[in-house]
Amino acid sequence: MHIAVPKLFQLCCALAALAGSTVAQAAPPPSQANLSPVLNAGMDGASALRFDWPMIRIGTGEYDEGPTGVTVFRFARPVHGAIDARGGGPGTVNPEFLQLGYDRPALDAIVFSGGSWYGLETVTAVNTAFVDEGYRGGRWDNVGLVEGSIVYDLGSRRLNEIYPDKKLAQAALRAVQPGVYPVGPYGAGRLVMTGAVFGCNAHSGQGGAFRQIGDLKIAAFTVVNAFGIVTDRDGRVPDCNREPAWPQDLKAKDLMADAMNTRKEGWPPPPAPGDARRNTTISLVIVNQALAPWELQRLAVQVHTSMGRAIQPFATEYDGDVLYAVSTAELSPPEDERISLVNLGLLAGEVMWDAILSAAPEQPAMPVPSSASVADAKTLNKYSGDYLFSQFAKLTVTAAGGKLFGQATGERDIYAIPRNKSVELLPVSATEFTVPGRYPLLLRFDAKGGLTINPGRWQQVAKKARR
Amino acid sequence: MHIAVPKLFQLCCALAALAGSTVAQAAPPPSQANLSPVLNAGMDGASALRFDWPMIRIGTGEYDEGPTGVTVFRFARPVHGAIDARGGGPGTVNPEFLQLGYDRPALDAIVFSGGSWYGLETVTAVNTAFVDEGYRGGRWDNVGLVEGSIVYDLGSRRLNEIYPDKKLAQAALRAVQPGVYPVGPYGAGRLVMTGAVFGCNAHSGQGGAFRQIGDLKIAAFTVVNAFGIVTDRDGRVPDCNREPAWPQDLKAKDLMADAMNTRKEGWPPPPAPGDARRNTTISLVIVNQALAPWELQRLAVQVHTSMGRAIQPFATEYDGDVLYAVSTAELSPPEDERISLVNLGLLAGEVMWDAILSAAPEQPAMPVPSSASVADAKTLNKYSGDYLFSQFAKLTVTAAGGKLFGQATGERDIYAIPRNKSVELLPVSATEFTVPGRYPLLLRFDAKGGLTINPGRWQQVAKKARR
Amino acid sequence: MHIAVPKLFQLCCALAALAGSTVAQAAPPPSQANLSPVLNAGMDGASALRFDWPMIRIGTGEYDEGPTGVTVFRFARPVHGAIDARGGGPGTVNPEFLQLGYDRPALDAIVFSGGSWYGLETVTAVNTAFVDEGYRGGRWDNVGLVEGSIVYDLGSRRLNEIYPDKKLAQAALRAVQPGVYPVGPYGAGRLVMTGAVFGCNAHSGQGGAFRQIGDLKIAAFTVVNAFGIVTDRDGRVPDCNREPAWPQDLKAKDLMADAMNTRKEGWPPPPAPGDARRNTTISLVIVNQALAPWELQRLAVQVHTSMGRAIQPFATEYDGDVLYAVSTAELSPPEDERISLVNLGLLAGEVMWDAILSAAPEQPAMPVPSSASVADAKTLNKYSGDYLFSQFAKLTVTAAGGKLFGQATGERDIYAIPRNKSVELLPVSATEFTVPGRYPLLLRFDAKGGLTINPGRWQQVAKKARR
Amino acid sequence: MHIAVPKLFQLCCALAALAGSTVAQAAPPPSQANLSPVLNAGMDGASALRFDWPMIRIGTGEYDEGPTGVTVFRFARPVHGAIDARGGGPGTVNPEFLQLGYDRPALDAIVFSGGSWYGLETVTAVNTAFVDEGYRGGRWDNVGLVEGSIVYDLGSRRLNEIYPDKKLAQAALRAVQPGVYPVGPYGAGRLVMTGAVFGCNAHSGQGGAFRQIGDLKIAAFTVVNAFGIVTDRDGRVPDCNREPAWPQDLKAKDLMADAMNTRKEGWPPPPAPGDARRNTTISLVIVNQALAPWELQRLAVQVHTSMGRAIQPFATEYDGDVLYAVSTAELSPPEDERISLVNLGLLAGEVMWDAILSAAPEQPAMPVPSSASVADAKTLNKYSGDYLFSQFAKLTVTAAGGKLFGQATGERDIYAIPRNKSVELLPVSATEFTVPGRYPLLLRFDAKGGLTINPGRWQQVAKKARR
Repeated sequence: MHIAVPKLFQLCCALAALAGSTVAQAAPPPSQANLSPVLNAGMDGASALRFDWPMIRIGTGEYDEGPTGVTVFRFARPVHGAIDARGGGPGTVNPEFLQLGYDRPALDAIVFSGGSWYGLETVTAVNTAFVDEGYRGGRWDNVGLVEGSIVYDLGSRRLNEIYPDKKLAQAALRAVQPGVYPVGPYGAGRLVMTGAVFGCNAHSGQGGAFRQIGDLKIAAFTVVNAFGIVTDRDGRVPDCNREPAWPQDLKAKDLMADAMNTRKEGWPPPPAPGDARRNTTISLVIVNQALAPWELQRLAVQVHTSMGRAIQPFATEYDGDVLYAVSTAELSPPEDERISLVNLGLLAGEVMWDAILSAAPEQPAMPVPSSASVADAKTLNKYSGDYLFSQFAKLTVTAAGGKLFGQATGERDIYAIPRNKSVELLPVSATEFTVPGRYPLLLRFDAKGGLTINPGRWQQVAKKARR
Repeated sequence: MHIAVPKLFQLCCALAALAGSTVAQAAPPPSQANLSPVLNAGMDGASALRFDWPMIRIGTGEYDEGPTGVTVFRFARPVHGAIDARGGGPGTVNPEFLQLGYDRPALDAIVFSGGSWYGLETVTAVNTAFVDEGYRGGRWDNVGLVEGSIVYDLGSRRLNEIYPDKKLAQAALRAVQPGVYPVGPYGAGRLVMTGAVFGCNAHSGQGGAFRQIGDLKIAAFTVVNAFGIVTDRDGRVPDCNREPAWPQDLKAKDLMADAMNTRKEGWPPPPAPGDARRNTTISLVIVNQALAPWELQRLAVQVHTSMGRAIQPFATEYDGDVLYAVSTAELSPPEDERISLVNLGLLAGEVMWDAILSAAPEQPAMPVPSSASVADAKTLNKYSGDYLFSQFAKLTVTAAGGKLFGQATGERDIYAIPRNKSVELLPVSATEFTVPGRYPLLLRFDAKGGLTINPGRWQQVAKKARR
Repeated sequence: MHIAVPKLFQLCCALAALAGSTVAQAAPPPSQANLSPVLNAGMDGASALRFDWPMIRIGTGEYDEGPTGVTVFRFARPVHGAIDARGGGPGTVNPEFLQLGYDRPALDAIVFSGGSWYGLETVTAVNTAFVDEGYRGGRWDNVGLVEGSIVYDLGSRRLNEIYPDKKLAQAALRAVQPGVYPVGPYGAGRLVMTGAVFGCNAHSGQGGAFRQIGDLKIAAFTVVNAFGIVTDRDGRVPDCNREPAWPQDLKAKDLMADAMNTRKEGWPPPPAPGDARRNTTISLVIVNQALAPWELQRLAVQVHTSMGRAIQPFATEYDGDVLYAVSTAELSPPEDERISLVNLGLLAGEVMWDAILSAAPEQPAMPVPSSASVADAKTLNKYSGDYLFSQFAKLTVTAAGGKLFGQATGERDIYAIPRNKSVELLPVSATEFTVPGRYPLLLRFDAKGGLTINPGRWQQVAKKARR
Repeated sequence: MHIAVPKLFQLCCALAALAGSTVAQAAPPPSQANLSPVLNAGMDGASALRFDWPMIRIGTGEYDEGPTGVTVFRFARPVHGAIDARGGGPGTVNPEFLQLGYDRPALDAIVFSGGSWYGLETVTAVNTAFVDEGYRGGRWDNVGLVEGSIVYDLGSRRLNEIYPDKKLAQAALRAVQPGVYPVGPYGAGRLVMTGAVFGCNAHSGQGGAFRQIGDLKIAAFTVVNAFGIVTDRDGRVPDCNREPAWPQDLKAKDLMADAMNTRKEGWPPPPAPGDARRNTTISLVIVNQALAPWELQRLAVQVHTSMGRAIQPFATEYDGDVLYAVSTAELSPPEDERISLVNLGLLAGEVMWDAILSAAPEQPAMPVPSSASVADAKTLNKYSGDYLFSQFAKLTVTAAGGKLFGQATGERDIYAIPRNKSVELLPVSATEFTVPGRYPLLLRFDAKGGLTINPGRWQQVAKKARR
């Protein structure tokens, strides 16, 4: 019998099989202590952004077991930096210093990380690596300065609390290279989402864009993990787990108008569910034109404000939005050839919009339950058991009457499988099952007692516990 | 012979004739000392915003001679306020106090004004009126608090330096009334423009919108005087003096893409001409739901950021953008009926977008030069002479060879009529002449030696000097 | 019989007689509308600070009827400015602009004023005067920038609500002159006090100091109206209405230690009485050395912080402390001759301390009640009547049994004479009476039905109402 | 022959011998990778501050090899926090969040560290320890929040670049205990100094003080590493390496007056030498009274400002001063029993002054060169050789003519022993030598080829390299 498996799934399954099998060997769930950094994933892929700017070297590190990751931007020499924090829950290292308006370049690197405030360890780790490697000593004029921010990728987004740590950050720092940046679910954007405001919960990633206009270079990098929806220049929302009644060609203005409709049932809407309350988009815009401190700060403000077009709403209580603006000061044109600050901001805002749109990967296809009987009772029995994802996430699978059921039996729900009741797992194939709904799950069992939820870049892997 | 005069012009001319004739009587140009406040203009018009909210009383004052004006928002009792200043050249009174996070309502009124920093006199004048009228004494717990901001409406936008002053502001304060707000070129929005970034230079005004959703009330007021273009929810730019090659259905994304085009002649574009460098959008969002200080501040940030959709670019060096958020705290629903802060911000952002779009009045129609000879030499000779608009703006009109010519002979250009050369004034009718171009002028001569440039809401009036 | 009248009283009485008699002629109490500016008072006195710095021109305006006043610092050309606001209730005009770090000099003038937030009218008035006088037009590159702050000198400090207004400020602006600054109860420091934290309530004023070191010039100006006590470099509190038990040589450390004493009766002390809750010290430090924006801001922070030595406590909830730092940029020494920023701050902090100490005028001497009978019944009867200080401050004087009694019969207490009971007025001389206590009153009756409370710089004048 | 060794030296020598001998065994200088945390040193000493407040648990960690260290303040449950950063070069983690005025307690711990910006690793490490230990998960409502700041204790203050790291911080966190805090050169205050502004360069440490007044508790903790001098309540400067001409009873006002003296030779003074340009005082004030966010922020401002009395100058370019204010909210008295905010600030400012004064340890005694010949040529020869302190600090000792000489032969000077010339090491005893001057060195050789500079808490240890 032929089962239609969407193309993306096929792709991801190969990867998943690899990752899954390895992980499944380890009896206990992975802990922070024994993780292996995956470096510069996606850098040689077709979707990677390539650009010519030796001053910028980038490295990424990821822990597949989270998944979660970190992205390091290291500058070839100290640069000028400014910061604009606008979100309701920012996580930052050393922003005060950038706000003092010094005209001396001092910034060595910027670090973006997953892991919520725990991920700030990556920012400080990059700085200490500079001492350890001898790049920076501690003389008064030779103290490294690394700034950075984090996004929230914990909670119900995954079934563990692994965070990017010192080891991962320093490995990513050592892996930096110029001219390439993986776009999509990589680095700090390994497990990020958008659109919880309307329940979209679309997968996102880190985005990037680069433009050169004459000698002027502008690069924009962003990790899009927004409470708001991402909107293109025609007002469309390309990525969203839609409510059934919503049109395929979803527009921001329609969602907004709907929210304004007072006659709608269920108004006011309930507050966002807990996890939807933590997001954050962190961004970096870099120009090579020399700018005075006030100019760099203004660039940060103008570009950060412009992002309100691409992400709606933006800068909410549930975001921690921070933007860094950097000037490498490689370009000091005479006054009359200089691109005006306001035009520079306008251009950089467009580059940033491109970066935001580039972030979203292809969304997972919906698994289609099979109408045929796909697995016999013996197989189903074999799948029964307790699957441990982490110390607080456990799934108990039971077979009964030729059907398979799941129930979360740890401290937390397993996505759409709650703790308080048993849910039928509908068969897709002999090894795959699904829980349909707006955010469908795919569960794949393997022969060795392994279970992978949502195989692919965001998969969660468990092994059946011995009874 | 029939001359096509567009409808708006016919309307405005009636008004202009009235105003013009009166002004022309006065031999010297108007000075700050002898101006007459025009109060609550447009409040009974069809375009006025009407709403039911007794806590908010609004008054406007205008000096037609500028034109320029002021808008006063007086609250029935002290309210909570927050401020978010994002522009490069803000003008504010007392913002520091609002930033201290006090949980006691203290704000009596907010004042918006034209006149650039000179207009700040209106803000302080409203506060002193509170003492003069006995509303506020000076006891430690009874000091009035008035905040406010200004827009730039001077420079080449008009031919004088009249500013909204203490007299005008206190008159407007005494004229406040609930439930009505004139939308368009009124109050502080009397002479404002948008879109200088792309040379649009469209007329704008003050905008307003109101929504009630159950018990929740949201009002948004704004004076749109932006360097950026105003964009609707479909990405269109409704109001713009277009370059000839531009399409009628002008889109923001096309203008932006054009700006990114490196092969375009004349890149980089020259810096904005002087006067385009001063703008400012000032806004006020009011809700009746009680909010903690941090919530009100967050509302300000979220709504102000959302305005980046409607005004592109926003928060530039050439703007002084400031937004005030106010809670009247009339509504204190139980926690589970409360509209979440993020939804409140989303809704208020939409109301603000409506307010911005409401601000633009119908743009002046293009005068069409007549191909026929419309005035004889005698008439043309009668028009010749020096017309004094203010101490630094003078227009010399001369007749030669059956044609009429104009040249600025004071300290400043007269719009499209420069100081360094004579420009032909093309006849439209026996009394009207035009200088065509992207920003065409209409000059109307009257029988008594008066000259009105651009008759209508933004007209400039002069009388011929005796030789 | 000889009555000892302290010397200061003799001096002030001459002035008082003059002022008093004039005022007494007017039947109604003075209103804001009919006040006469007193300009540059004290500038030719011995206590005036004289200095050689043509870039700084200073004018003061006062309304004796308050008393209250304003001080205008006008710069010969635009200068660089920074602001540091640290108090709990600041009043400022346009601080946001100074915080943007622009490197272009833009500041025309700084205005200090009494009148609490109402006094902000003086700040905006100085700017509009610049247009009115033609110094500043409204072109984009020619907009005047005036900043300023206020102190609280209303409430129970005087018996009226007169505030420094547009008329007074513009008169003071026109009166500016270089090289001289009246130290003591002049200008914005006309009715200021210090030490309410410990009940000192000492009279203060505006202070100033100047130092030239080589080519380097440093000037410090301040209006000391602090909730804290003023302390000299030996820790002494020179000016304080002491509690009876306190030593003559009062030290800050002893007052502080006393406050820490847990066994003391009445701990915790009651909150400061209402009026003590409003104070504010506003300061200006000017240097002629060119400084980058961050340097000027740092100078502001360092000097403002240093003032915590001279005023204890400083920057409290009950203050609105603001400091402006200005660089005239007249001096641009080569790097190796430049005084380091930190040394500049140290020096300026010392100059500011000198300025603070200079502010306090000689404190009023204590009136001594006479043991002899000083006035006959007929005279006492003549003094009886209602004395109206303002629309809300009325004193009713009655004679009974050869004694004179007073009671406040308006809306407010008359200093130590309350509304709820009659207080005996003890005779000092035939025309003078006193209410003893920690803050003694002196009441002087004149032949024409006038009454002056506390004759001198801070006197309050009333005329007997006709019955 | 008897040699007078001051008592402190005898004490420290015992310790030094212990530490020195151990270190000397290791051939290579210590690297960051193989350091052993010393935990809670000084906690059982007489100088430790003891207090009764279970909400506060404190742990310290030190690396003797630096020396440098970290101090962790862990709260028994999340608390309210505010921050006031005033220095020119602050190092902070997550300050933005504290500035948002949230009224929910969220702060788990505050960390103070040496190591300049590298020491920020300790702040993030304490937060990740919270996940690792299971105290904090990653749910949206269960993310740990740790804030902290650092001081500069690198550069010429020691001969290596060891910094407090993740290992040290997490060890210190695990060692926290209530009620005790080591005062002096411990924890983050292990190698701090004061007074570089006047060349004092006095040893300092971490200070602490506690006061209970009724139910009200106030604690102040600070690491005093100030560019300014520390001043007591009588204006005295207790700790300073004085210039020879300065009096024993050194007063701040005299130093300041001296700085103002224009006739002094060498004016303007040269900029502070490089290393003097990095300092920082970081402080923490904790109260148990519940405070609104604005009140806590005001407390931070008032107390931080009050520190300008004890440290002169304060908040300079060369400092990175940061103060945290925390309320444990254990005490919520009725309004009329509540200590007013301004009094709370006043009291807390006094407690902080006590804390600052407590920080300074006994200063090292001056070694006295012996007039007698103390070592024979053979011994001197034995001392000859290269002593390696770290990869960039090497001292070459040579014997010639019965004298011993030293010269720095690595990348940096060895305190008073420069790289560009040989300096005689004057004998104090057979094993001890000194380089006299304002900042004298003591060098002690041991039998096993070890050399200890300045034996005691701040000693630097090297072993002779094999040739």
